[in-house]
Amino acid sequence: MLHTYETNGAAIYAESFATIRREADLARFSKDEESVVVRMIHAAGMVGLEEHVRFSEGMAETARAALANGAPILCDAYMVSEGITRPRLPADNEVICTLRDPKVPELAKEMSNTRSAAALELWRPKLEGAVVAIGNAPTALFHLLNMLKYPSCPRPAAIIGCPVGFVGAMESKEALMEDLPVPSMIVKGRLGGSAITVAAVNALASWKE
Amino acid sequence: MLHTYETNGAAIYAESFATIRREADLARFSKDEESVVVRMIHAAGMVGLEEHVRFSEGMAETARAALANGAPILCDAYMVSEGITRPRLPADNEVICTLRDPKVPELAKEMSNTRSAAALELWRPKLEGAVVAIGNAPTALFHLLNMLKYPSCPRPAAIIGCPVGFVGAMESKEALMEDLPVPSMIVKGRLGGSAITVAAVNALASWKE
Repeated sequence: MLHTYETNGAAIYAESFATIRREADLARFSKDEESVVVRMIHAAGMVGLEEHVRFSEGMAETARAALANGAPILCDAYMVSEGITRPRLPADNEVICTLRDPKVPELAKEMSNTRSAAALELWRPKLEGAVVAIGNAPTALFHLLNMLKYPSCPRPAAIIGCPVGFVGAMESKEALMEDLPVPSMIVKGRLGGSAITVAAVNALASWKE
Repeated sequence: MLHTYETNGAAIYAESFATIRREADLARFSKDEESVVVRMIHAAGMVGLEEHVRFSEGMAETARAALANGAPILCDAYMVSEGITRPRLPADNEVICTLRDPKVPELAKEMSNTRSAAALELWRPKLEGAVVAIGNAPTALFHLLNMLKYPSCPRPAAIIGCPVGFVGAMESKEALMEDLPVPSMIVKGRLGGSAITVAAVNALASWKE
């Protein structure tokens, strides 16, 4: 016998988001933040994620406005850039990942750093006013913070800082919220990753659920 | 002052995997399975994930052998296909995602199903002996199970079934383990997603840590 299941995409989304809003503790978030957190929980399949999410004051509004005004989206990994839903973008925003640029391996060697970190050097011409989405490498987030220590470095509009893992992820996200070079959000601790990061971008790009 | 942090990719991997092996309960897994579970925990940043992972008997060995013999890898989402590390693939294996094929929207309408499910109809010429990696859509996994109800449908070598979310994810993965049309693995319940799925493929493709 064939399996029967919900096949209507819109109904699946509506039921998923209703379940999340019923189960998750979202009271401390603003309306702008809440729709982001709901989508992140959806991508992770994990009610409880909300406890680990932190926004700096006004970050969600700032990032939404930047995207509406056409800000490019700079991603540390192709899993992030590939996941962003193009039809949700409000201004046909450019989505950029420089990780496979042929200059990156040599740059990484010169910098004695990972390719993920080295790839950010190629962001400079696009960095001013951009929305940054780091969903994989703690070294990328640390390197971005070090780049932004220099006043001559262009400033992004906002940073989504969600690198994942066991070495440097927690520390790099704490450093982001302490330095706070621009409005930022994080998932505290080890949790993070490309799916959660993509969900944040997709939510900030459009109110459509 | 600039941040200092571990910038050596190999050292980051080694320390991450050592932490996971220290903290996670991996005793019930075979050697072939353990390296897969460790990598999945790494991708999710989540010790405890191991409790939810299930392999059918011999799945990990079967999937490794299929990949070594050049099996194509069929993915339900671009976040999955983009995340697979090409240099880890043992036989320059083809990595396929059919979601953006121009035939998919019309097929989905005809089938009254999601585009994720409809895209699998285009897998048929590559399905025999393939390794399937479903990391996003429950509808894709359900539709695959329904395709495999017909004896005329080509058989993949193994299925990684890790769709994520609140509607159909749990149910589709339970259905996979009950039907068990071919050797399979799942993450039980709501958890899953592209990062975890990619980690499983990358681990099955190579023993390199």
